[in-house]
Amino acid sequence: MGADTAATQLAALTADRVDHRFKGLPPEADGLTVGELAAQRRNLFTDGFTTPVLALSAERLQHNLALMETYATRHGLAFAPHGKTSMAPQLFWQQIEHGAWGITLAVPHQVRVARRFGIDRIFLANELVDHAALRWIAAELARDEDFRFICYVDSVRGVELMDAALAGTTRPVDVVVELAAGEGARTGVRTEAECAAVADAVAATTTLRLAGVAGYEGEVPQADPERVHAWLRRLTALAADFDKAGRFAGLEEIVVSAGGSAWFDAVADVFAEIPALSRPVLKLLRSGAYVSHDDGHYRKLTPFTRIPEEGALHPAFRLWAQVVSRPSADQAFANAGKRDAAYDLDLPEAQVVRRDGVEHPADGVEVTGLSDQHAWLRTSPGAELRVGDWIGMGLSHPCTSFDKWELIPVVEQDGTVVDYVRTFF
Amino acid sequence: MGADTAATQLAALTADRVDHRFKGLPPEADGLTVGELAAQRRNLFTDGFTTPVLALSAERLQHNLALMETYATRHGLAFAPHGKTSMAPQLFWQQIEHGAWGITLAVPHQVRVARRFGIDRIFLANELVDHAALRWIAAELARDEDFRFICYVDSVRGVELMDAALAGTTRPVDVVVELAAGEGARTGVRTEAECAAVADAVAATTTLRLAGVAGYEGEVPQADPERVHAWLRRLTALAADFDKAGRFAGLEEIVVSAGGSAWFDAVADVFAEIPALSRPVLKLLRSGAYVSHDDGHYRKLTPFTRIPEEGALHPAFRLWAQVVSRPSADQAFANAGKRDAAYDLDLPEAQVVRRDGVEHPADGVEVTGLSDQHAWLRTSPGAELRVGDWIGMGLSHPCTSFDKWELIPVVEQDGTVVDYVRTFF
Repeated sequence: MGADTAATQLAALTADRVDHRFKGLPPEADGLTVGELAAQRRNLFTDGFTTPVLALSAERLQHNLALMETYATRHGLAFAPHGKTSMAPQLFWQQIEHGAWGITLAVPHQVRVARRFGIDRIFLANELVDHAALRWIAAELARDEDFRFICYVDSVRGVELMDAALAGTTRPVDVVVELAAGEGARTGVRTEAECAAVADAVAATTTLRLAGVAGYEGEVPQADPERVHAWLRRLTALAADFDKAGRFAGLEEIVVSAGGSAWFDAVADVFAEIPALSRPVLKLLRSGAYVSHDDGHYRKLTPFTRIPEEGALHPAFRLWAQVVSRPSADQAFANAGKRDAAYDLDLPEAQVVRRDGVEHPADGVEVTGLSDQHAWLRTSPGAELRVGDWIGMGLSHPCTSFDKWELIPVVEQDGTVVDYVRTFF
Repeated sequence: MGADTAATQLAALTADRVDHRFKGLPPEADGLTVGELAAQRRNLFTDGFTTPVLALSAERLQHNLALMETYATRHGLAFAPHGKTSMAPQLFWQQIEHGAWGITLAVPHQVRVARRFGIDRIFLANELVDHAALRWIAAELARDEDFRFICYVDSVRGVELMDAALAGTTRPVDVVVELAAGEGARTGVRTEAECAAVADAVAATTTLRLAGVAGYEGEVPQADPERVHAWLRRLTALAADFDKAGRFAGLEEIVVSAGGSAWFDAVADVFAEIPALSRPVLKLLRSGAYVSHDDGHYRKLTPFTRIPEEGALHPAFRLWAQVVSRPSADQAFANAGKRDAAYDLDLPEAQVVRRDGVEHPADGVEVTGLSDQHAWLRTSPGAELRVGDWIGMGLSHPCTSFDKWELIPVVEQDGTVVDYVRTFF
C-alpha cells in the first residue's frame, strides 16, 4: 500500500498552489500549481525568481543518488538514508528508487511525515519513550501489516516506558540495542553488560521484539580510522554474542546498523567481516548528508577522500543572494542570512558573482558573518562586486540548509528549473 | 481593504487542517481544523502532544504586547514592530490591535506574507534592488491605494536599479536614506555628504519619493549609551538638515526611524529632542524581539534593565523536550536539537523538569550542546533526571526560535492550549 499512498500524496504536492508560503519563487507565479510552474521550465536567473533563493542542482543530485546506490550495492550493504537531512518525501522516494531499503529518521514527527507519504520501512535512529507517539506507532503497525518499524533502546527504564505505552498492542515494536560510541559519547548503552541487561528487559515484554544492534560511529571520541574500526568491531561482536546467546532466535533477519556520512568506508570494512550468524544479517547503512553533500563540513569529512577510486560526491546546493549594499571599499551586504543559510558548522562560501547574465569567480569576496537576514561580505581590493549583483554561495551542512527552505527549485546546469522539492520540518 | 483581507485569511488559518506539517501536535488530532483543536482546550502535558513541542505563554505574550504599546504611547513613538521575528500574521494583527502603526519587515518574501494577510503599512528595513520583487511591489501599490510601503536606500547605484525596475509605475515608492551606524557597521550610507548624494539621486527620479531617514542603532560599533545616543543624534540631525534643504517639501509627514530591541530607551530619548520640522514627524520605532522576549540574549540586552520603572518584558517561550537517554551519571539526552531550538547566540537554558504531573527546578542540569535532533545535558551529582522526564527549556533569540516552528501552541499557565500561532518563514 505504500506505493499507492505515495503516488496520491506526491501528486498532491504537484497540485499544491504556489503562494506566500514559499520564498524565492516568482511573485507573479502565485496561484499556479507547483506542477504548472515546473512545466514552464523557467530560468532561475531571468524568469522572475526573487532573492534569496536556494537552488538544488538536478545533475548533482542524480549523481549523488546514483553514487551511494552503487556504493551500498558494491559493499553488500542495505541502505536506509537518514531522512532527517532533507525531510523531503520526493527525495525519500528517489532514494528508494535508487535501491534504498527504507528511510532512517530521528523523531516521531518525521515518522509521521514519512508515513503520510507511504514509506513502509522506517528505522528510527533514536530512543522513543513518548507515550502519545508510541500509541500512534502502535496504531500504524496495527493498521498496516506492510509497515516495518525499528527503533533504538538504551536503558531498562526506556524499555519499561515503551512497554507501558504499548500495552495491549497487537504487533510488537522491533527494537535494536544501541551501543554508545564510547564514554562521553551521545546516546547508547555504555557497556556490553548493560546491553545484555537491556536486551533481557526487552525479552521480558510482549510488546517489544529485539531485532538487532545499532549505533553511530560518528560520535566515537577523537574519531580516527583506528578508533572507528575498533568501535564498529565492538558493535558487530555484540551482535555475534547476542546471536550466540539465542537472543535472535525468532527473527527472519538480524539487524546490524551504523553509518553516518563521515565513516561509511569503515562501516563497509567491518560489516564485511561479520561472521555467519544464525539468521541472515541486514547490514543497514544510514548516511544522509550525501543527497546534497556540501561545500564545507562534509566536503572535508566524506570517506570518498580516503577512497577516491570509488568516486566523489558533488555539492548540490547553491544559495543565490543579491548584493543590496556596498557601503565601503572592503564591505558589502547580501540579502541572505540565518533564515536562509546553514551557519552552525561553517559560514557560507562565496563562489561566483553573476551580473547581466555573466558569471565570474567570487575572487576576493568572503562571507564573514550572518545576521538574521543579511550576509556580511568582506572584499579585497579589486574584488568585482556591485549593488545588484547576484552572489552564489556554497553551504556547509546539508541538514541545516534544507531546513530553511520549504520548496526548493531543482535547477539544471543552464539555469532551467525542472522541479521543486518540498520539505517538511 | 486590509481588515477584510485579514479576516478572510486569518479565518483560513483557523480552518486549516492539523496534519504532518506541524510537529508537536497530538497525532490523533490529525484531520481536525486548527480551530476545532483550539476549541478542545487540550492540556499540553496530558492530552497527547508529542515532544519536542514549543509553547508560547498566553499570559506573557499579552503582557509583552501591552507593555510595548504603553511604552510607545508614553514616549510619543509610532511603532512598526519588526515582523521578521515571528513571521506570524496572527501576531502582526495583535500588534496592530495594540496600537502599532504597521509592521517592519526585512525581505520581499516577508512583505508578500504580510500583504496576503492584509497588512497595509509596511516598513522594509532593508535595501531593495531585486527587479522581480520591485515589479511586484509596484503592482501592489497600483492595485491598492491603502498600501503604504517604505524601504531603505543607501547608494546611488541602488537608486538607479530601483528606478529602472520601477519604470512606468503609477505610484512612486517611498524611500528613506539609511544612515550607517558607523564605520564597519552593517548597511547604510557612511557619511552625511553621501546621504545627500543618494537623496539627490532619489529626487532625480519620478519612481521614488524621499520620505525621511532611518537606521539601526543596534549596529553602532562598541555600542554603549553614549555612542548610541551620539549616532541617533546624527540621524535626527540628518533629518533636520534634509528638511532645511527642502527635501521633504511634498510630504504629509517626515519619517524618522530607528530602534531594535536593545536601545529603544535611547531612541525614545533622542527622538523626543527632534525639533519642529516643516512637516509632522512620524517617529517610527521598530523593535521586534519583545513579542516573545527570551531567556538569554535579550534578557541581558533589554533596555528595561536600565528603566525598571517602566516595566519588564517576560520570556514567553518554553521548549519542552523529553529525556530519551541517561547513559551515565553525568550525561543525559533530550529529543530536541538544532531543528527545534535557537542556538545562534546561546544554548537553551534548562529550567524545569516535569514528571508525573509535578514540576521541579532543573537544578544541576545544564545544556552543553545541540546535535541536529538531540540536546546534550550535563547533570551534577544529585540532579533529579530520568528517562521519560520532560524538560522545560528557556531559549535565547526570538527570531531563531519562531523560525523552527510552523504552528506554535499558545498555552495558559495551567497548561491549557488556547490557540495556535502559524508562522511563515
